[in-house]
Amino acid sequence: MTDSVTVIGASGALGYGLALRLGIAGTPIVVGSRDAGRAEETATKLAEQVPDGAFEGFANGEAAARSKAVFLCVPFRNQSETLTNLKNHLREGQLLVDATVPLAAAVAGKATRTLGVWQGSAAQQAAEMVPDGVRVVAALHTVNAPGLKDLSATLDEDVLVCGDRKADKQRVAELIDLIPGLRAVNAGSLEAARIAESLTALLIGVNARYKTHAGIRLTGLPAELW
Amino acid sequence: MTDSVTVIGASGALGYGLALRLGIAGTPIVVGSRDAGRAEETATKLAEQVPDGAFEGFANGEAAARSKAVFLCVPFRNQSETLTNLKNHLREGQLLVDATVPLAAAVAGKATRTLGVWQGSAAQQAAEMVPDGVRVVAALHTVNAPGLKDLSATLDEDVLVCGDRKADKQRVAELIDLIPGLRAVNAGSLEAARIAESLTALLIGVNARYKTHAGIRLTGLPAELW
Repeated sequence: MTDSVTVIGASGALGYGLALRLGIAGTPIVVGSRDAGRAEETATKLAEQVPDGAFEGFANGEAAARSKAVFLCVPFRNQSETLTNLKNHLREGQLLVDATVPLAAAVAGKATRTLGVWQGSAAQQAAEMVPDGVRVVAALHTVNAPGLKDLSATLDEDVLVCGDRKADKQRVAELIDLIPGLRAVNAGSLEAARIAESLTALLIGVNARYKTHAGIRLTGLPAELW
Repeated sequence: MTDSVTVIGASGALGYGLALRLGIAGTPIVVGSRDAGRAEETATKLAEQVPDGAFEGFANGEAAARSKAVFLCVPFRNQSETLTNLKNHLREGQLLVDATVPLAAAVAGKATRTLGVWQGSAAQQAAEMVPDGVRVVAALHTVNAPGLKDLSATLDEDVLVCGDRKADKQRVAELIDLIPGLRAVNAGSLEAARIAESLTALLIGVNARYKTHAGIRLTGLPAELW
């Protein structure tokens, strides 16, 4: 394992944007996809956009095994299946960063509503599903994905980071803070992900109403957050 | 009825701050309290702080009847009882602005958690309890109450306004926008209040962690919001 970061779901806007922006910041990126060919294609596309970057593509399991930090950027309807398939690949000591939002759109409901997840949040569901010793942090839910993907867009938002261990959140914050215009905020324990996740549904409504890609900022915070 | 605004719960930080700041902006304020004497005391205190303002105090029922817009700024454990007691005082055409947050602290739980409210949110509970024809808008949940009350504090936050009729939200937004440093954002229908309410619990955690009074801003919105 190197200091690479794996992004599962990098063909979606959020995952692609994250891989792109972290790649620009100098982080080696491992792209994971259900299909190895698709992952390689995405890695090639990223490398074309960022000739100085390091991008590789593998099927999800192999991709997940290659980095200490694994970002899960898949739609809610794929989260559970993806995690089941990663059970034999994730190992103790790895960090899974879950960005899943249980939008009701997953079951053909409204994207301005969330589903109730038995464990409390998609992130808590992830925590229940990963192998022992794999820690879960939730982040990136509210990030304006089209803006993340569009290098001409200037980002101006905070990222709510939820997790049960501060050191894990801090590691995720270090990665997020590599991206200009994003600021990672310690938003509490993993259970607070249910709030961060649902906020995404509210922002989707705001986006539709104001024809924009809104983000959130917390005001009144000190300069030093970690 | 004049263009006064009634604030129920003006002895609490949020209600007091709201009455204070709207009073400074030139809005006549009717203070409501369970006890008429307490309401008069609060009105007197406000008038001392804002000699140019117009403040009166009455028991909740009479206070609620005196303004077209009634802000409900009480703790969740008092919301239901207060609304029951207002049933014979609120009338068709009035606007109830609910700022209630169902923090688990209401039942000695954590202020970083919310209770599940059967109707979905405290605001939806309010909508079920008001007399026919009284419309409910939810707002102000996330506002930094100590800052609102402290005239030396500079406010810098958005207010998420949720409701089922745009005209009602717009009226509430006009009032909120009278307060320098606050900006009202159309955050969707009343059901979206469950998200705005829960966000307050997240901010309470942030406040404790960073020893501050945080607020929220949405970024990327157009200049014209209403």
